[in-house]
Amino acid sequence: MTFLISATYSVVPERDVILPPLTSKVLKYVLEGHPKIGSLVKSAKKYKEISIFPLFLRGRYLYSTGPGVMTLRAKERASFTFSLASEEVDPEVFEKIPNEVSTPYGDFVMILEEIRMTELGEVRAELGHKVNVRFETPTLLSNKYMVPPNVKARKLRQMNRLLPQPSLLISSLARIWNSIATPKEVIVLGDSDWTPYKLGRIADVMFAEVGYSLTPVTVVVGKDKNGNLRKTRGFNGWVKYEVVEAKRYTESMEKLLGLANFLGVGRSRGIGFGKVKVERV
Amino acid sequence: MTFLISATYSVVPERDVILPPLTSKVLKYVLEGHPKIGSLVKSAKKYKEISIFPLFLRGRYLYSTGPGVMTLRAKERASFTFSLASEEVDPEVFEKIPNEVSTPYGDFVMILEEIRMTELGEVRAELGHKVNVRFETPTLLSNKYMVPPNVKARKLRQMNRLLPQPSLLISSLARIWNSIATPKEVIVLGDSDWTPYKLGRIADVMFAEVGYSLTPVTVVVGKDKNGNLRKTRGFNGWVKYEVVEAKRYTESMEKLLGLANFLGVGRSRGIGFGKVKVERV
Repeated sequence: MTFLISATYSVVPERDVILPPLTSKVLKYVLEGHPKIGSLVKSAKKYKEISIFPLFLRGRYLYSTGPGVMTLRAKERASFTFSLASEEVDPEVFEKIPNEVSTPYGDFVMILEEIRMTELGEVRAELGHKVNVRFETPTLLSNKYMVPPNVKARKLRQMNRLLPQPSLLISSLARIWNSIATPKEVIVLGDSDWTPYKLGRIADVMFAEVGYSLTPVTVVVGKDKNGNLRKTRGFNGWVKYEVVEAKRYTESMEKLLGLANFLGVGRSRGIGFGKVKVERV
Repeated sequence: MTFLISATYSVVPERDVILPPLTSKVLKYVLEGHPKIGSLVKSAKKYKEISIFPLFLRGRYLYSTGPGVMTLRAKERASFTFSLASEEVDPEVFEKIPNEVSTPYGDFVMILEEIRMTELGEVRAELGHKVNVRFETPTLLSNKYMVPPNVKARKLRQMNRLLPQPSLLISSLARIWNSIATPKEVIVLGDSDWTPYKLGRIADVMFAEVGYSLTPVTVVVGKDKNGNLRKTRGFNGWVKYEVVEAKRYTESMEKLLGLANFLGVGRSRGIGFGKVKVERV
């Protein structure tokens, strides 16, 4: 049985700190040293079972969109969230994160504030008649999510799609789901290879936008060897969908969108991209 | 052989006029009385071969989004465009639109300003590396455009999708294309029933947004029996796409987007929705 766990910590720096452009790196550094979680953080798995979100301060997530620096003042309280999927649940995992951590970015006091947990098989985002999807951090959806499995996509150039097409969301989530699910929990529609693609196709018919506010955003992810900023482009905002009743598929969609409320959606969740909140309207 | 023709007229009212909420109705009224075009305007064809766009005044198309009225002042010069596909080209068609027209909305002087014409088989919007699609009037894309033909969609509720997914654009255009093309001109990928769907699927992989500005918009389309406003919801704005090279499909995509520059895209083009401009960047 797979569990989904989401933990939120408050974080207070001892002194003023200059944050890295991807603020999730601070928490990532702490987790890398963790006896159990460290290996998940470092794994090169395609559909990672851990998502580490950016520092959250005064109602917004902190990430860099340009050359300026971001700072956190001494004693200023921010928070961090990470989510993971695991077959074993051990509360000690979250207690083993020390209260006082020393990182290359500075020293922090970290206090566990909240743990959410559910069984994968039980997770749902209720759809109802309308559902709202808020992209809380820039989201990266690959054009490859909707390549049918009988097409060779290796040669195809990977690009980020900047509009949250329902098929891209659902195909991404189905890939994540089936990579963390036990054999009893997997979602299969006919053939398992075709499932993300097929559910994606259905999502494009089941969900129709009734309102939105979306903005492309370029995010700094680091520096290259020559000191130039490395950037990637995603989008931010929200979409409200009207949902067509399709009883055969409603449960699968509710499961996948429920998963999104833990692990987010799309690429690079391990460094903070793709945090979403799905809520019935 | 099918021809695409687009005609633009300047329109000047004799006296101040109050315009109908769908300003295309003024030109529609004139064209309905036309010996040759009248039947096209009135036809109930699903993928109409004629598009009648709203009145264009000082750089913008006029349509109503609320209860207020739109007016055109006496002697104020606006313009109108309509486009059609036809197997016969007779310049007289455009000259037979009288210079002085009397409509339920007022009397106007109409002068032919421009005619664009091309053979359907020759029309192209060159893709290059990047292409910009500007939605100049609210655009209505149906969730049904991407239902595969082996799924019964009759029971499925029709909804307008408010984000311009490449698949929806291309599927809509392929349906229009094949409904106006002669047997030699049709675009077929394997099976003709599956062609709009398949080209749509390919478009979602070939085109990736690199920038956009999009807004949902509610448009007044008339009044019901009780005098309440009838409305429909579409979107406005622009999207810039990066194009993945896919030599096998580039020509079909260029043809379909070239068609869009004449007839527009989506539903209700006959009353002014879905005017687009596709341009290589």
